Amino acid sequence: MTPSGPHPLDPLSADEIKLVIKVVTSSHQNVKFNVVSLQEPRKAVMTKWLANPSSAPRPPRVAEVTVIAPGGKVGDGLVDLRTRKIEQWKWLDGLQPIITLEELQAVEHVVRTDPKVIEQCKLSGIGEDEMHKVYCDPWTIGYDERFGSNARFQQALMYFRPHVDDCQYQYPLDFCPIYDSEKGAIVHIDIPTTRRPLRREAEINYTPDAVQRAGGYRSDIKPLEITQPEGPSFRLSGREMEWQNWKFHIGFNYREGIVLNNITYNDKGNIRDIFYRLSLVEMVVPYGNPDHPHQRKHAFDLGEYGAGYMTNSLKLGCDCKGYIRYLDAEFPTQDGQVRYIKNAICIHEEDNGLLFKHTDFRDDSTIVTRARKLIIQQIFTAANYEYAIQWIFHQDGTIQPEIKLTGILNTYSINPGEDNNGWGTEVYPGVNAHNHQHLFCMRIDANVDGPKNTVFMVDAMPSEEPVGSAANRYGNAFYAKKTKLATTGEAKTDYNGATVRTWDISNMSKIHPYSKKPASYKLVSREIPGLLPRPGSLVYKRAGFARHAVHVTKYRDDQLWPAGLHVPQTSGETDVGLPEWIGDGKESIDDEDVVLWHTFGLVHFPAPEDFPVMPVEPMTLLLRPRNFFANNPVMDVPPQRSVKPSQVSAEGPPPRL
Amino acid sequence: MTPSGPHPLDPLSADEIKLVIKVVTSSHQNVKFNVVSLQEPRKAVMTKWLANPSSAPRPPRVAEVTVIAPGGKVGDGLVDLRTRKIEQWKWLDGLQPIITLEELQAVEHVVRTDPKVIEQCKLSGIGEDEMHKVYCDPWTIGYDERFGSNARFQQALMYFRPHVDDCQYQYPLDFCPIYDSEKGAIVHIDIPTTRRPLRREAEINYTPDAVQRAGGYRSDIKPLEITQPEGPSFRLSGREMEWQNWKFHIGFNYREGIVLNNITYNDKGNIRDIFYRLSLVEMVVPYGNPDHPHQRKHAFDLGEYGAGYMTNSLKLGCDCKGYIRYLDAEFPTQDGQVRYIKNAICIHEEDNGLLFKHTDFRDDSTIVTRARKLIIQQIFTAANYEYAIQWIFHQDGTIQPEIKLTGILNTYSINPGEDNNGWGTEVYPGVNAHNHQHLFCMRIDANVDGPKNTVFMVDAMPSEEPVGSAANRYGNAFYAKKTKLATTGEAKTDYNGATVRTWDISNMSKIHPYSKKPASYKLVSREIPGLLPRPGSLVYKRAGFARHAVHVTKYRDDQLWPAGLHVPQTSGETDVGLPEWIGDGKESIDDEDVVLWHTFGLVHFPAPEDFPVMPVEPMTLLLRPRNFFANNPVMDVPPQRSVKPSQVSAEGPPPRL
Repeated sequence: MTPSGPHPLDPLSADEIKLVIKVVTSSHQNVKFNVVSLQEPRKAVMTKWLANPSSAPRPPRVAEVTVIAPGGKVGDGLVDLRTRKIEQWKWLDGLQPIITLEELQAVEHVVRTDPKVIEQCKLSGIGEDEMHKVYCDPWTIGYDERFGSNARFQQALMYFRPHVDDCQYQYPLDFCPIYDSEKGAIVHIDIPTTRRPLRREAEINYTPDAVQRAGGYRSDIKPLEITQPEGPSFRLSGREMEWQNWKFHIGFNYREGIVLNNITYNDKGNIRDIFYRLSLVEMVVPYGNPDHPHQRKHAFDLGEYGAGYMTNSLKLGCDCKGYIRYLDAEFPTQDGQVRYIKNAICIHEEDNGLLFKHTDFRDDSTIVTRARKLIIQQIFTAANYEYAIQWIFHQDGTIQPEIKLTGILNTYSINPGEDNNGWGTEVYPGVNAHNHQHLFCMRIDANVDGPKNTVFMVDAMPSEEPVGSAANRYGNAFYAKKTKLATTGEAKTDYNGATVRTWDISNMSKIHPYSKKPASYKLVSREIPGLLPRPGSLVYKRAGFARHAVHVTKYRDDQLWPAGLHVPQTSGETDVGLPEWIGDGKESIDDEDVVLWHTFGLVHFPAPEDFPVMPVEPMTLLLRPRNFFANNPVMDVPPQRSVKPSQVSAEGPPPRL
Repeated sequence: MTPSGPHPLDPLSADEIKLVIKVVTSSHQNVKFNVVSLQEPRKAVMTKWLANPSSAPRPPRVAEVTVIAPGGKVGDGLVDLRTRKIEQWKWLDGLQPIITLEELQAVEHVVRTDPKVIEQCKLSGIGEDEMHKVYCDPWTIGYDERFGSNARFQQALMYFRPHVDDCQYQYPLDFCPIYDSEKGAIVHIDIPTTRRPLRREAEINYTPDAVQRAGGYRSDIKPLEITQPEGPSFRLSGREMEWQNWKFHIGFNYREGIVLNNITYNDKGNIRDIFYRLSLVEMVVPYGNPDHPHQRKHAFDLGEYGAGYMTNSLKLGCDCKGYIRYLDAEFPTQDGQVRYIKNAICIHEEDNGLLFKHTDFRDDSTIVTRARKLIIQQIFTAANYEYAIQWIFHQDGTIQPEIKLTGILNTYSINPGEDNNGWGTEVYPGVNAHNHQHLFCMRIDANVDGPKNTVFMVDAMPSEEPVGSAANRYGNAFYAKKTKLATTGEAKTDYNGATVRTWDISNMSKIHPYSKKPASYKLVSREIPGLLPRPGSLVYKRAGFARHAVHVTKYRDDQLWPAGLHVPQTSGETDVGLPEWIGDGKESIDDEDVVLWHTFGLVHFPAPEDFPVMPVEPMTLLLRPRNFFANNPVMDVPPQRSVKPSQVSAEGPPPRL
C-alpha cells in the first residue's frame, strides 16, 4: 500500500470486493457471487508503469466478476473500481464457472435427506437412524454426456463415518448421487452393477485418542528449535519482497493461489528481469479405474475449485519454524459478503546446507559457504488431498517450485475377495484406492533480460560419429543438442528421460561474453509421466495442457487458464484454452514475448503406507540461470570458514588429530 | 566397542592397522602399503552372529591388505587379526591398485623439476623462475593403450597458479605429462597439435580478499540458529545407530567411505530386516571431448582413488547446524604408519517440514505433524570436485541417498576465438570446461524381510484396451505393469522416463494382508542419463556397471566392486566386476539373496555460473517402503496441532479473523 493506493498487482481488498459487489448488485439483483477478483493490468500498461512508476500512468484497478443469476444463468463482467462502473457484461450459455466452497458444503445436507439416497444407504446396510453418519465429498461432475453443461451438477462421492472424528475415507459407499446446484436436489444416482455393501471393519484413525489406544505416541523425538534472533533477511513492503538480490510481487487469487510477478535479480547493481509472472495455473488428477462412473474422477483442482478458494488458514497449522510472515486473503461469499482467510500465505527462510565448498587436497585449505533459501508457501485442501505449494528462492538465482502431497487417498469400496483388476490397491479391508496421477501445469511468463525470448529443447546426446572414427576415436564424445522451438506447433514437446531433456528460455540478444551462449533460464524437471489416459479419452480431450510436457505460446493478455476460463463440465469436444490458442501451430515464437506451459507430476499407485493419512510425497523442479550471470553469483555470501593456502603454510597444516 | 571387542563390522582401529602392518612387514619388507582394511565377515557367518550375538561364534577379524613391493610388484593378502598370521597372499600381474593421496602428492614436485616439462612451460610462456607456480592434478592414467597396465602411471593435468591463493583451475596448460610412479619420473608428455599458450587473463577468485576487492560480502543475511537443547533424538552405541525405529551400523572404508549395514526397522516391536548393506561402490566421470588425450579423463573416483582416502576432515568445515556427532577414520600410510582423519563422518538431525497434514473442508478441523530426518554425511574431494554424500533416513521408512556436487570444474585451455565444437563451455576467458557426466553406482544388498528377494521393473502404462472399448470406454484406464527380472540377464534394465519406471525389491513370501501385494522397497530414481560414451567406447568397456540403470546379481561374498577390485589401468578388454559376474546372464535371481546395482547421475554441461567455484547441484533418490507396513507407520509421531471435528463443534468453528 503506497500513498497512491495499492500496488497494481495487489489482490482486491475487502473494501474493494465490497465496492464491486455493490456496483454489480445495483444492476443485477439476487445473483450469487462466484468470483470477484483482480483483473491484472494489461501487460503493455503494466510494463510502462513498472519502468517508470513515478510518472507513467497508474494502471486502472479492474475487477473480474462472475455471478450466477436465479435460474442458473452465468454472467461474466468487468468492473472499474475508479469509475465504479460495470465496463463489460455478458451472459453465458453452456458454461459453468468454478465451484465455490459454499456450493460444495450444500450437497451433504441434501444427500442425507434425499429418499432415494436413504434407500441406497439402506441397501448398503446403513440404518435410517444413521443418516447423520453419511458424508459426501461433492465434486463437480467433471463431464458426463448424459447431463451436459447447461445445468450445474456435482457428483457426491459417498462415505459412511461412524464417528465424527473417524477418518472419512475408510468406509466408502458404492453409489454416486448426482446433485443439481440450481435445484438443490439429487437428480440421479449412479448405481454399479456389482454392489458393494458397507463393510464395518475395525476403524483405523490418526487422531490422538486413536493413536493412544493403538499404543501411544513415540516419545524419543527431542526438540529442535530454529530461531532468527535478529529477524528475517527479507524485506516485505506491502506485497513486494526483497531478499538476497531477488525482488518480486506476491499476488494471490481464488484460482491459482500464489502468483509471483515481476521477478528480478539485482546483478551487481543491474536489475535484471527474469520472469514477468510465475504460477501454477491448472491441475488434473485423472483416476485410472475404467469402471463407470469413475472416469468422472479427474479433478481440475484449480479450474474447477480454485487453489485460492481451497487454501488453508495457516493460523491453524503452518508450523514453519523460525521467523514467519503471513499474508491474508479475502474473497467474496456467494451472498455478497467477504470471507477472510487469515494467514493464507506463509513466508520464511530456511538454512539450506552447503552453498559451495572446496578443499585443496595438497594442504587442506578450505572454503565452506552455507546456503539460505526463501520459501513462499500455501497449502490447500482439495477434499481428501492436501497440496503444499512452495516457491523456493535460492541465493544463486535458482527458483525451485516444490509441491508436497499429503492428506488422504480418494477411496472406493471393494468386496471381500474382489479382484480390483490392477486399477487400484486395497489399502485397508474394503478400501480400494484407485491409481491416479497428479499433473500440474506451471505457467512461466518468461522475461529473461526482457520480453523477447526463445525456447530451446536441450538433449544430452552422444556424438553421431562412430567409435574409432577420426572425430570420435575413443567414443567418448557427447554434447548438448539444442533444438529451437520456432513455432507453437514445434513447441509441443515431451520429456525424454534417456537424454535428460531440459528446456532453455533464452534471450538471443544477450550473449554471454565468455561462453558466447545466450542468457538463459533452464527448466530442469524430472517427474514428467505424461498423461496416462489415452489420446481421444475424455481426460485427454478436456486437459489439453497435459498432452505435452511443454507448450509455448506468444503472450496475450487473458490467456491464463490452459483448460479454459470456465472449466467445470467442459466436454473437450471443442478446443478451449491452450489447444485453442495454439490452433494450427504456425505462429512464430522465435524471439517473441513467450509463455512456457509446463505440465509435470506424479503417478500414484497407492499402497497401505498411504492410509489412513499419507506421509508427504514431495516433488520438485528447478529454473536455473545458465549463461546468465558473468560467473558464480554467490561468491559474496560470507563463508562459514575460509583458510587459504597461504594461511596454511604460514600457520602450518591443519592438525590431523 | 563391546567388552568382547569391536563390532564385527567396525573399521580396523589404528592399533589393528598397526598390527596388520607388523604382521605383513615381518614377511614382506620394504613394501608400500596401499590398503589395510577390514574384510567384512562372510555373510553366512555374520548373519548367524547377528541372529544370536550372545551365543553364535563371533566372526573373525580379518584385514585385506594390498602392498606395492619394490619393482612395482603388487601383493594382495588377508591377515587374521586373532592369529596374527597372513592367511592368504598372492602377487599380481598387470593389475594396479588404488592410487593413494601420497602417490598423488608426489607428482607435482617431479613435474616442476623435469626438464621436458620446463621446456613445455617455456613454450607456454612460463619463465623458468615461475616453475613454483606450476601445479598439477595427477590422475591415474585411466587406460592408455600405449602404456598398458604393467607399470603404474599417472597423467598430470597441468595448471599455472600465479599466486598460491588463486583458484587453480583458471590458467590451464595444454600439455599432459605422464608420470611413472615406480620410477618417480616423467616418462612422456602428450602435446596437442594445436598449441594453446598460457593466457594471463585477469584472475577470478572466491577468497575473502578477492571478494573484498570485488565489492565485498553481502551484509543482509541475518543469523539463523538451530539448537537441540535436550540433545539429539538418536543413540549411537559404538557405531550402531538407533533413531526413530531405525537401527543400523555405520562402517567406513578407504574405498566406499560410508557403508551402512544391517539396516532394520522396528515395526511395532517386530524388528524387520530391510537392507543387509547399502553404499556407493563406484563412480565414473566421463568427459565428452574426443580430442586426444581427453578420452583418458573418466575418473572412477571410488575404485581409482577412494571415497574414504579422499574424505574431508569435517573439523575443517562440516558446518552442519544443530547437535552433531562425528566418527573418525584411520588409514595406513604408504610407509606403514597410521593416518587419522578427525571427523570423517558427521551425523545430525534436521527438521523436514510437513510429515503429514489433513484438514476437513467442512469445519477446518486439522491435524498437522512435522517431520524429522537423520543425516549421515561425508564430503570428499576428488582433486577439483567435491562430493557431499548424505544418507538421509526418514521416519516413515524411506531412505534417501542425496549427493551434493560442488567444488571446481575440471578445465582445459582454449585459444582466443577458438571453436570448442560443442564439447565444452568457455566459462572464463581461456578456460574451457568440458562436458561431463557424474555417474554413481549404488550397491543395494537387499534384505527385505529376509534375504530371499525378487526384483520387478514397474512401468506406469495406459490400458492396452482402446478408447471406446467395453473395457476402457472413456480411455482413462492405467495400471502399474510389473515385469519380474528372473535372471541376471533380464535384470539389465534401463530407465524409461515416459513410464516413470521404478524398481521394486520384493519378498514374495510376505504378502500384505490388505493389498495382497508383496512387502517391497521401491527404488525411485529420476536422474538416470545412461552412459553417453557409445557402446564399444573405452569408457563403456571399462565401466560395465554404467551400461544399464539397474543390474541385479545373486549375492556372493567379495563381489563388492563393479568395475573390478583393482580399477586403475584396466583396459576393459576383459570383463571384470559386474559384467564378469553376470556372464551369460542365465543365473536365476528369482527369490534369491540378491544385490541390486543402480547407476544414476547427472550430465553437466558447464556454464559460467559454475566458475570459479560451483554452487551446489543436488541429486537425490528414494528407497520407499510399499506394501511393507500395515499402514502409515508415522501416525505415532506427535502432531504439531490436532483439532478433531468433535472439538470444533464443541468449541465452535475456529475463528476466521
